[in-house]
Amino acid sequence: MGKNILVAHGGGPTAVINCSLQGVVEGARASGQVDKIYAARFGAEGILVGDLIDITSVPASAIARLSHTPASAIGSCRRKLGEADYPTVLKTLKQFDIDCFFYNGGNDSMDTCHKVNELAKREGLDVRVIGIPKTMDNDLDLTDHCPGFGSAARYAALSAAELALDASALPIHVVVLELMGRNAGWVTAASAMAKRLTGCQVLTYLPELPVDEDRMLADIEAGYAKGKGLLVTVSEGICGLDGKPLADTGIVDGFGHKIPGGTAQHITDQIIQKLGLKSRAEKPGLLGRASIPYQSATDREEAYAVGKFAVEAALKGESGYMVAINAEREPEYSANLSLVPLVKVANVEKKFPLEWIVDGNGIADPFFDYALPLMGDSFPEYAQLR
Amino acid sequence: MGKNILVAHGGGPTAVINCSLQGVVEGARASGQVDKIYAARFGAEGILVGDLIDITSVPASAIARLSHTPASAIGSCRRKLGEADYPTVLKTLKQFDIDCFFYNGGNDSMDTCHKVNELAKREGLDVRVIGIPKTMDNDLDLTDHCPGFGSAARYAALSAAELALDASALPIHVVVLELMGRNAGWVTAASAMAKRLTGCQVLTYLPELPVDEDRMLADIEAGYAKGKGLLVTVSEGICGLDGKPLADTGIVDGFGHKIPGGTAQHITDQIIQKLGLKSRAEKPGLLGRASIPYQSATDREEAYAVGKFAVEAALKGESGYMVAINAEREPEYSANLSLVPLVKVANVEKKFPLEWIVDGNGIADPFFDYALPLMGDSFPEYAQLR
Repeated sequence: MGKNILVAHGGGPTAVINCSLQGVVEGARASGQVDKIYAARFGAEGILVGDLIDITSVPASAIARLSHTPASAIGSCRRKLGEADYPTVLKTLKQFDIDCFFYNGGNDSMDTCHKVNELAKREGLDVRVIGIPKTMDNDLDLTDHCPGFGSAARYAALSAAELALDASALPIHVVVLELMGRNAGWVTAASAMAKRLTGCQVLTYLPELPVDEDRMLADIEAGYAKGKGLLVTVSEGICGLDGKPLADTGIVDGFGHKIPGGTAQHITDQIIQKLGLKSRAEKPGLLGRASIPYQSATDREEAYAVGKFAVEAALKGESGYMVAINAEREPEYSANLSLVPLVKVANVEKKFPLEWIVDGNGIADPFFDYALPLMGDSFPEYAQLR
Repeated sequence: MGKNILVAHGGGPTAVINCSLQGVVEGARASGQVDKIYAARFGAEGILVGDLIDITSVPASAIARLSHTPASAIGSCRRKLGEADYPTVLKTLKQFDIDCFFYNGGNDSMDTCHKVNELAKREGLDVRVIGIPKTMDNDLDLTDHCPGFGSAARYAALSAAELALDASALPIHVVVLELMGRNAGWVTAASAMAKRLTGCQVLTYLPELPVDEDRMLADIEAGYAKGKGLLVTVSEGICGLDGKPLADTGIVDGFGHKIPGGTAQHITDQIIQKLGLKSRAEKPGLLGRASIPYQSATDREEAYAVGKFAVEAALKGESGYMVAINAEREPEYSANLSLVPLVKVANVEKKFPLEWIVDGNGIADPFFDYALPLMGDSFPEYAQLR
């Protein structure tokens, strides 16, 4: 008799989280050892109420379309499980006779995974639990990088290049581009690629380093004065010297919390008012994680591979691990997969190295050595005739 | 002895304006009748000071890269010429011995083209003047559509589809997407494609129809209550019942003019404050005209063709015309090119038909019959398992 498996998504989707789902399903089918394939509808929310989707018989053609489907095809949620929720999770696993449970997410999800695994062991439930890494923020520890990052980085790099060229072709304003990553600057750092791709002027600010707003404005003024346009790229979460976010929307939500956001617009307002220059702010926001045309082929293939590897590991009897990516960059990029204990990954945040930030607004070469292979095979070469 | 030609860009770039430049250059080379190919550096600004780039000998490989180069490879400007400027334009045309002048732009540029042609005739200067249409806004008259629109529409349609799927996969907020088009809703209308591509809920608001904000909020509340997320797409220029823009940045520029912008953020603020729902605003802004991965293949090919056609027409002795696209959609899409008098195009704005707006927030089928062939050959089919 074969195994029954359950896969769930946690947290914000990426451009390739569905590729990992495809890897799980196709891996399960290829193994010949799996009876039922279930997916949690809207992640933990579905698991807690026993709302699983039986995708065992979904046609291969529909599964293949997952490779270019944005967001999560099974739904996700942001619910962080409390202690009281774990017995309910186990109840659902028992109810559906689940042998292998795969949770595809970031830090919080790996913590959930770990706790489910521990409780199952204590209760003597024979279920194997494997975490599948995913986060565009790239802040999971013990893996070279996270599926989802390569595509978000490619989006940031190419979008910034396109804006930099627009800003230099019609140099009437300073363009400010806001990118996702409240605490982690990995994605915003990739936008500094625009300088290499276009030769245009680009200033980049990450959330890891507090920003001196006066100096930032002075740098912007000096950059713009050089002519040929200027692009400023910022992470949505950059803070001032006082450690507080540069901007919030000024709006208070139903719980009395200030709604964050508007960092690029805030900087644009400062440029207009204090420097007397024209400026405009762009904020593609969620498009940075949802865009399929900017998907990285490397990221897509690796996201698929970690899903498949998770299934193979669980079917071999492994439990309590996350799939990690180990990469070599010399003489050329290659990657292989391994298992790392969930307990070592849960709730640890990998920070962007401060030494890769140059003069407060530039990114050092070692970052590009690290990130370029993850952004997909080739970048376009543009024509500049002026 | 061969002819000397000059090509210039006017106004905001599109994703395919460089394709028209490629068409001009390759058309000129193929003709065997052209000696010198000049490009105006930064459009009219370059013409007025005699700053032309001699691109006669640029390698074919660099010219070929124009097809996927964003923005303008020769630079553009927003300078609107005054009466006093036209003699200076003629002076530059004489100085460089220009026989054919091509101006690639929108309404204003066609007006400029017309005036240059008239003055040249009056002064007995033997120069042929042809306008090459370009505007993502799609508001030029006497042409079925404008090069640049198809790519901007594809960007709007696919980006909206990607956001709609994200909003329905993690239905924790109303997502509001702001798209370019201050007075013309053509591009924003294309975002309504997201409903067809994903089956998700999408409400779309164009600048042509004043918006009753209370009703808009009621529609948003009702849509969100249905579950499975909600995407609202708006044109940056939508106005309230009083005819005034829904939002401006609250910032005054050096000339005392309020800086427009922030329409999506304004609606998001209203959703949070008045409906008590979570919401976030996305504004890709200039990316909607600069993005190459979302470029429409049809748009790319047509932009190339209008550039080449302009050269062929001028070499045949035509002057005072704009190249127009004539399209058939039955039994399948096909297009051919012709010449229309500049005087009939200059300063006329083609409006989005009000009868294509359904219930204030939807787009009627005839728009999609019109626009779909322009957005490129095929749209992705997504996998939805929930």
